[in-house]
Amino acid sequence: MAIVAGIEGGGTKFICGIGNEKGEILDSIRIETTSPTETMDKIINYFQCKNFEAIGVGVFGPIELDRDSEEYGTILSTPKIQWQQYNIYKTLKEHFNRPIVIEHDVNAALLGELTWGAAQGLRNAIYYTVGTGVGAGLWLNNQFHHGELHGEIGHMLIPVLEEDTPKGGSCPFHKNCLEGLVSGPGIYHRFGIKGEDIPQESPIWDNVAHYIGIACVNTTLAYAPQRIILGGGVMNQEFLLKKIQEHYLDALGGYGQKKIFIDVENFIVPAQLHNDPGLMGAFALANKILL
Amino acid sequence: MAIVAGIEGGGTKFICGIGNEKGEILDSIRIETTSPTETMDKIINYFQCKNFEAIGVGVFGPIELDRDSEEYGTILSTPKIQWQQYNIYKTLKEHFNRPIVIEHDVNAALLGELTWGAAQGLRNAIYYTVGTGVGAGLWLNNQFHHGELHGEIGHMLIPVLEEDTPKGGSCPFHKNCLEGLVSGPGIYHRFGIKGEDIPQESPIWDNVAHYIGIACVNTTLAYAPQRIILGGGVMNQEFLLKKIQEHYLDALGGYGQKKIFIDVENFIVPAQLHNDPGLMGAFALANKILL
Repeated sequence: MAIVAGIEGGGTKFICGIGNEKGEILDSIRIETTSPTETMDKIINYFQCKNFEAIGVGVFGPIELDRDSEEYGTILSTPKIQWQQYNIYKTLKEHFNRPIVIEHDVNAALLGELTWGAAQGLRNAIYYTVGTGVGAGLWLNNQFHHGELHGEIGHMLIPVLEEDTPKGGSCPFHKNCLEGLVSGPGIYHRFGIKGEDIPQESPIWDNVAHYIGIACVNTTLAYAPQRIILGGGVMNQEFLLKKIQEHYLDALGGYGQKKIFIDVENFIVPAQLHNDPGLMGAFALANKILL
Repeated sequence: MAIVAGIEGGGTKFICGIGNEKGEILDSIRIETTSPTETMDKIINYFQCKNFEAIGVGVFGPIELDRDSEEYGTILSTPKIQWQQYNIYKTLKEHFNRPIVIEHDVNAALLGELTWGAAQGLRNAIYYTVGTGVGAGLWLNNQFHHGELHGEIGHMLIPVLEEDTPKGGSCPFHKNCLEGLVSGPGIYHRFGIKGEDIPQESPIWDNVAHYIGIACVNTTLAYAPQRIILGGGVMNQEFLLKKIQEHYLDALGGYGQKKIFIDVENFIVPAQLHNDPGLMGAFALANKILL
C-alpha cells in the first residue's frame, strides 16, 4: 500500500501530513501561512524525515495548472501579495525527487469525495465549498476540468432578490455574485451576524438557501452532472441542505429533462469527508498520480 | 477526400446535404419538419441514391447522446410531441450501414467553427447561438461536454435589471433566464418589436448586450474557455458584438486573472460560418467520425 504526502495550502494555514490509500491520516502538522519562503522551509523540513512515494498539493488559487506550462504550480494574482508568482511545484521538486501533483484546493477536496466520499464512481460531479469563499471543483468526463485556469463559478452572477438589492453582497469584484451573497463573510456583511449565531428558524437561512438553490440550477444547466456535492463551513448547518433542495426545484421550474436532475436527495448531497477533507484530498491526488 | 452526408434537423425544417472535407456543400435539399415517419422517409429517400462514407446529424434537443445507451439518438421531452421518444439514430442505421453520429445542433455548429471557422485549433471553446432560443455548444478539453444530457446553459439564471422586472422574459420555465431575456421571442415579448426592426441606436440593444455580457462572464467563470463564439439570428446585428464585449468587461469587474479573458476582441468573437453553419457542422461531425 502506498504511503503518500499531502499538503493542504490555505490562506491562514498549511496542513501537511502522511496518509495511506484509505485516506487515513498517519501523521500531520499545522504550519501558519506566512511568507512563502518561511512557510515552505517548514514544510520541507517536516517532510524531509518522512517516507512517502508521492506528494499531492491542494492549494488556494488562482494557480497555473497546465502541466505543459513552465509556470505549472505558480500562484497567480492573489490578495496574498507575497505569494503572487510563487511556484510551489518548483520548490517542492527541488527537494523531493518524487511525483508531485498540484491542484486547486476545491478540486483536491472533490477528489477526496470521488475517492472515499459522496462522489465515488461518478464521471461527472461538481463540488461546492461554501465557507470563507465559494469555490467549485469540476470533475467532467472522469477528469478535472481546468480550461485555461480553473473553475471560478463560485463568483457566478445570479438574480438578486429585490429585498437584498439595497445592501448587496460582499464581493469586491462583483458585489452580488454567489460568493458575495452566501459565503460566510457575505452573510455577515448582509445581516451583521455570523452563520453559527443565526438560529435555525431565522428567515436568513431561507434567503441563503434560495441563492445556493439558484446556483445549483445554473450548475445543472452548465454541466449536467450526476451529482452536486456541497461542503464548507456554511453547510455545517445541516438543516440547510433540505431548504436548498427545495429552492433548487422551485428555480428549475420543471426544466429537469432527466430524472437524475430532479431526484434531489441523490442529486444535491452533503460532503461526506469531515476529518480534514483538504488533507484527504491531497492524499487522493498523490495516490492518483501513482496509478 | 471523403464525401459525407449531413443532416441539420430543426423544428421547422431538416436540411440534408452532401459535402466534402472542406465543408463545401455539393448538393442539398430542404425537407419540412412534419411527423417523424414522414420526415425521415423523405430524408432516407434523398440519401438512398447518393454516395457518402458517413452521416453526421445535428438535431434539436433534448436528445440522448450517450453512445453506450440503448437510447442513443432518441429525442427526449420536447414541445414537438410527435418527436418525443423518436430515435433518429436507429432509423438511419436501419437504412445506411455506415458510421452515423448524432449531436445536439449547437454542438454540431460549434464543430463546424472548430473545423473551418472561428474556433480552429482550440481545445476549450463555447459557442452560443442566440436566435429563436439560446443554445450552447461546449467543447472542453478537446471533446464535446455532454454530462448526463448536454449543456442547457442558455437557460442560465442571471441578474435582471430593475427596469425589466415588471415585464420579465418569455421563458415558460424560468421567465427571466438568458433565453427568456435575449432570444428573438424574448426580445419581442419584452419590447413588442422584432430584432430586425429595432434601430441600431435604440437602447434596447444596450439592454440585450448587457445580458449577453453577463452570460459571457458566467461562461468564463464556469469553463475558463479560450474563446466564446456568438452566432444565431440576433447576432446578425453586427454592432451588437462590441456592446457585448464592453458589458462583459464591466460585469467581470476586474476579475480576469489571465490576459486571455480580458483580451475581448479575441475572446468574444462572432461565428464565421454563415453559409448554412448547421449543415456544415453536420459534415464536420461525419468527417470527425471517419478520422
